[in-house]
Amino acid sequence: MIYLDTDYMAGAHPEVMEALNETNMLHTPGYGEDDFTCRAKKLILDTCGLDEGECFFMVGGTQTNATVIDRLLNRNEGVLAADTSHINVHEAGAVEAWGHKILTLQNNEGKISALQIRSYLEDFYADDTHEHMVKPGMVYISFPTELGTVYSKKELKDIYKTCSEFNLPLYIDGARMAYGLNAQGGDLCLKEIAHLCDVFYIGGTKCGTLFGEAIVTRFPELLPRFVSFMKLHGGLLAKGRLLGIQFATLFSNNLYNRIGKYGVELAMQLKEVLIKKGFAQFIDSPTNQQFFILPNSVIEKIRKEVSFEYWGSPGQIESKVRFVTSWSTPPQSIEKLTELL
Amino acid sequence: MIYLDTDYMAGAHPEVMEALNETNMLHTPGYGEDDFTCRAKKLILDTCGLDEGECFFMVGGTQTNATVIDRLLNRNEGVLAADTSHINVHEAGAVEAWGHKILTLQNNEGKISALQIRSYLEDFYADDTHEHMVKPGMVYISFPTELGTVYSKKELKDIYKTCSEFNLPLYIDGARMAYGLNAQGGDLCLKEIAHLCDVFYIGGTKCGTLFGEAIVTRFPELLPRFVSFMKLHGGLLAKGRLLGIQFATLFSNNLYNRIGKYGVELAMQLKEVLIKKGFAQFIDSPTNQQFFILPNSVIEKIRKEVSFEYWGSPGQIESKVRFVTSWSTPPQSIEKLTELL
Amino acid sequence: MIYLDTDYMAGAHPEVMEALNETNMLHTPGYGEDDFTCRAKKLILDTCGLDEGECFFMVGGTQTNATVIDRLLNRNEGVLAADTSHINVHEAGAVEAWGHKILTLQNNEGKISALQIRSYLEDFYADDTHEHMVKPGMVYISFPTELGTVYSKKELKDIYKTCSEFNLPLYIDGARMAYGLNAQGGDLCLKEIAHLCDVFYIGGTKCGTLFGEAIVTRFPELLPRFVSFMKLHGGLLAKGRLLGIQFATLFSNNLYNRIGKYGVELAMQLKEVLIKKGFAQFIDSPTNQQFFILPNSVIEKIRKEVSFEYWGSPGQIESKVRFVTSWSTPPQSIEKLTELL
Amino acid sequence: MIYLDTDYMAGAHPEVMEALNETNMLHTPGYGEDDFTCRAKKLILDTCGLDEGECFFMVGGTQTNATVIDRLLNRNEGVLAADTSHINVHEAGAVEAWGHKILTLQNNEGKISALQIRSYLEDFYADDTHEHMVKPGMVYISFPTELGTVYSKKELKDIYKTCSEFNLPLYIDGARMAYGLNAQGGDLCLKEIAHLCDVFYIGGTKCGTLFGEAIVTRFPELLPRFVSFMKLHGGLLAKGRLLGIQFATLFSNNLYNRIGKYGVELAMQLKEVLIKKGFAQFIDSPTNQQFFILPNSVIEKIRKEVSFEYWGSPGQIESKVRFVTSWSTPPQSIEKLTELL
Repeated sequence: MIYLDTDYMAGAHPEVMEALNETNMLHTPGYGEDDFTCRAKKLILDTCGLDEGECFFMVGGTQTNATVIDRLLNRNEGVLAADTSHINVHEAGAVEAWGHKILTLQNNEGKISALQIRSYLEDFYADDTHEHMVKPGMVYISFPTELGTVYSKKELKDIYKTCSEFNLPLYIDGARMAYGLNAQGGDLCLKEIAHLCDVFYIGGTKCGTLFGEAIVTRFPELLPRFVSFMKLHGGLLAKGRLLGIQFATLFSNNLYNRIGKYGVELAMQLKEVLIKKGFAQFIDSPTNQQFFILPNSVIEKIRKEVSFEYWGSPGQIESKVRFVTSWSTPPQSIEKLTELL
Repeated sequence: MIYLDTDYMAGAHPEVMEALNETNMLHTPGYGEDDFTCRAKKLILDTCGLDEGECFFMVGGTQTNATVIDRLLNRNEGVLAADTSHINVHEAGAVEAWGHKILTLQNNEGKISALQIRSYLEDFYADDTHEHMVKPGMVYISFPTELGTVYSKKELKDIYKTCSEFNLPLYIDGARMAYGLNAQGGDLCLKEIAHLCDVFYIGGTKCGTLFGEAIVTRFPELLPRFVSFMKLHGGLLAKGRLLGIQFATLFSNNLYNRIGKYGVELAMQLKEVLIKKGFAQFIDSPTNQQFFILPNSVIEKIRKEVSFEYWGSPGQIESKVRFVTSWSTPPQSIEKLTELL
Repeated sequence: MIYLDTDYMAGAHPEVMEALNETNMLHTPGYGEDDFTCRAKKLILDTCGLDEGECFFMVGGTQTNATVIDRLLNRNEGVLAADTSHINVHEAGAVEAWGHKILTLQNNEGKISALQIRSYLEDFYADDTHEHMVKPGMVYISFPTELGTVYSKKELKDIYKTCSEFNLPLYIDGARMAYGLNAQGGDLCLKEIAHLCDVFYIGGTKCGTLFGEAIVTRFPELLPRFVSFMKLHGGLLAKGRLLGIQFATLFSNNLYNRIGKYGVELAMQLKEVLIKKGFAQFIDSPTNQQFFILPNSVIEKIRKEVSFEYWGSPGQIESKVRFVTSWSTPPQSIEKLTELL
Repeated sequence: MIYLDTDYMAGAHPEVMEALNETNMLHTPGYGEDDFTCRAKKLILDTCGLDEGECFFMVGGTQTNATVIDRLLNRNEGVLAADTSHINVHEAGAVEAWGHKILTLQNNEGKISALQIRSYLEDFYADDTHEHMVKPGMVYISFPTELGTVYSKKELKDIYKTCSEFNLPLYIDGARMAYGLNAQGGDLCLKEIAHLCDVFYIGGTKCGTLFGEAIVTRFPELLPRFVSFMKLHGGLLAKGRLLGIQFATLFSNNLYNRIGKYGVELAMQLKEVLIKKGFAQFIDSPTNQQFFILPNSVIEKIRKEVSFEYWGSPGQIESKVRFVTSWSTPPQSIEKLTELL
């Protein structure tokens, strides 16, 4: 069976697993006060070109988003985000559970623009009853987006400039960052991303670790007393070193980049095959998620040997489907899929 | 160096680690919908003698407590708990962060009694302005307690009877359950605990896993839509199988019990040694945490080779200290400590 | 000066004020346990044709909405509402502050339809990952809407039927209920509204009282321990009788209806005048709010003697404006406005 | 019947009521943007000797406490307060509902001391695991306390000095401020209080108004975007002028002081009578609340003509009771009570 359902179906990348095995019987302090965590932080900040930044590790994406957003916002502030954003659709209301409204902007293939943000802010401040409205307190984008697309350097610069002008922190959800950084035609590297936002996270769960997300900021003062805050949010891992060990491995020997590159390469092969076979994309994604419209007859045929997800409800004749590759997709998968088609 | 600081300093028990290694490259569905999780649930419910119960897995204790308590309580209800309880002292206010007051009862060596609970409830319902007060909505106890002590079968039965009389769910925090079940002089087994409360959790983090806690209930209707609730609380692990694999291992080949037994045996040896040497306990604990008062000179001497924690601020001449054993404490540790003393 | 800005610019209707004066020096129990409150509840329930219902009084609309919605929803549930609804736009995020997402439906002149609700619910339950989404837990509509429009009996019946089918409570915000019940061409009376929803509130602030909203339900079990809940929300008035006295007056001698009728009559006169003068409506409202597009030259001219609000930002040549009448609008106001035009 | 149950049993002081009547038919902007509110703020700030302070009006005490505390605290901070404090006991958990833990200190006749505060803070910062504990973020005291007692100038100075040293805002709940300022033997005036804390509120509900509390601060930057915050908390009154009119009246012609003086004078007469008759106090209160232990036979006898409350559960032979005077207690009440005794 070939699994193209999603990118969190396997355990950890073998190099990560090896590191966990090697260190398993060591005794270290808890809650991230160990040397592995310290080393992981340093490796990440170095890769990001940050001398004075800070880095924190949490277990999962929803937890990370809820905690960072709750930390960046004041009680009576909301977060500007695409209507398709993960926080708005698929996190069970975790942001609202902590009291914050998501102020949605209409997405364009998963993305929002500097212009939309500016327009929202200008409207808000134009209205003299805006004390009865939720104040926009930050902007959330994902890189890559939930639809696999990525922001160009120009787009991100414009967004960040607009945010800075209105004094709003920009936060980037990088659950699939490794694949975004290796996007076909993409022009952003990690160092640039680190300098074109205020806080972001580097996803581990979908990019090589058993679990874990690394929160990075150039401005530690934006995340005061953050360890306590993670504890309050139920997200401070007792054996914090597990996060440190995994991320230290990801950021050694170029592993994070190798993972992203591999996943995207397979996805691009897959895209090529499907397009050649005459199937239509409903989103043209340059990353590890591929979105196609397939005839139901084709779907039925290949499902016996390939596992993947419908995107929305199946149609009568043809349906939208998503294929996702990752570091754990065997290299011969695309070949097999080609044969099946 | 001998590490007796706490029981979450090492990775996972070798048998658990082996299971994680063996399954690492498999592809499975996420969020606990895999077969390993299914099997772990079955093993746990069987061990608890529950045919119709339900079992859920979360990553850590604070997260588990906040999520379960938030689920069991109505908005305007509070949780009765010992003033020394972990939720009241060391979870950074996570219970209050979700809106619930902790209604504290004075502890007796970490424990509270059926009588105290009854007395609180009678006072509450006696007061006709009780609509201005927080309604007690559940009772929280820990087994073993934060001070290493355990409830006897009689004590737990009395508490549960009182709770049932007032229609309050009883929830047991079992972060160190393995050691509690093997307490010196203890008379409670897991099956009995499962039947003497409404919801409880079996701790993994301190008892053999990398992380993870298993929530068990005889009454699934007490935890409706709980998967979504865990997601909302940021505690639904993407690669849920990691919890399933670890707990399936803990509950195979009697591992959970072996771990508890081993940890307590070492602790009892340690207690014997220290008492023989003439040192005083400030709590007489029958489990893996040992609480002693040591002369500062002794502390200074052994600290070079043994790592352990002060309990509160150090004194002028003597200080309170805590020693904690676990499955990962090497068998020769106590011997070495004895020599040092 | 003629004030047509909004309907909460004056104090209380003289009959209400008289009742407050007459009772001012009496000593009564606090928190709504007085006889006036008891009598007001009875009068309201009688008017609603409810033998077994319950009635509670709060001070303001935002408070009432936040408290009722928080009571009706479970933690992990959201409220379906029009995107233009007051709770979504002008309550400073009070619903989200208590942890609940507003699940917005696109309004049609301020209204939503049974079909939209059904469609949302069917989509939600179709998606097998809906545990990662916020569960719709109730429906909110306003009567009249924020745009002055009203639901017909047929429309409300359809909505309520759909809600009942999916077991969702329907809640009606009646901040301007008096004017809605007297809407031009409207076909709903209070008794019918009371039986076509689960909970609703009868607005006092905009309809004759100094302040106060009366929450009514046929199903008291939907609002358990509600007095304590109001206290928790900071909305339990110490001198609760002030609410009782005011609402007892509103529901004596047909006052509430007289207020609504008067306000709407003036609004209809105003509408007629403006249409005759050739000005366009951007919403055709049958209640006390009137929405017109006026040339800026006209606006400038009449603003010296008439006070009213822009609706959104002013345009270059013409602008959207709102005129609001109420029980306190002097009868000669429309005449004067006509002369000005 | 003589009513000595509590101090919110009557309507408004006649001078306040007159002001409401006189202004009733005026049309003014809502939400406190009217001239009356502006004038009231000025009068209060002048009385407090504050040139640069800010003043906000809310409807009730629980609402005020929850809103101010929620504004002053960061998410992961708690409020230090006496165990007997109103926020801890009788506000239905409103502070916790907004996510904040109350860190209780043992009261001494309703009061806490600078020493207790310092000791708590030193312990907190001594513990290097304090990131797992709730950070003390402010101090709450009431003046007078829930037991009628008042802080001396020396005591308040010490508390404020300690708070300042640790950079914690001090907030004073002045629900019964008028009576506290006129306490027998008291040595604090409003101007001094205003300068010996960071934020406080001047209670109206119990001191002459229909409802309303005036929040005062020397440091407006402590309460940013506070109007929106009040809205979010459901506590922004639509007809805000009602608060302005009432407080402008209270702070004209020395009314607030006259009210406090009168209430305390009656209470002192009552105290004298009861002591003369040989009854024991269980708290010696210098303000308008008096706490006595009476034989049940006496209680039974006078209850036919005097209404008052038990303090806690009645005893077998004698019981604790509370008598409360206010501006609305008729002057002959004490005489009558004396006759009855």
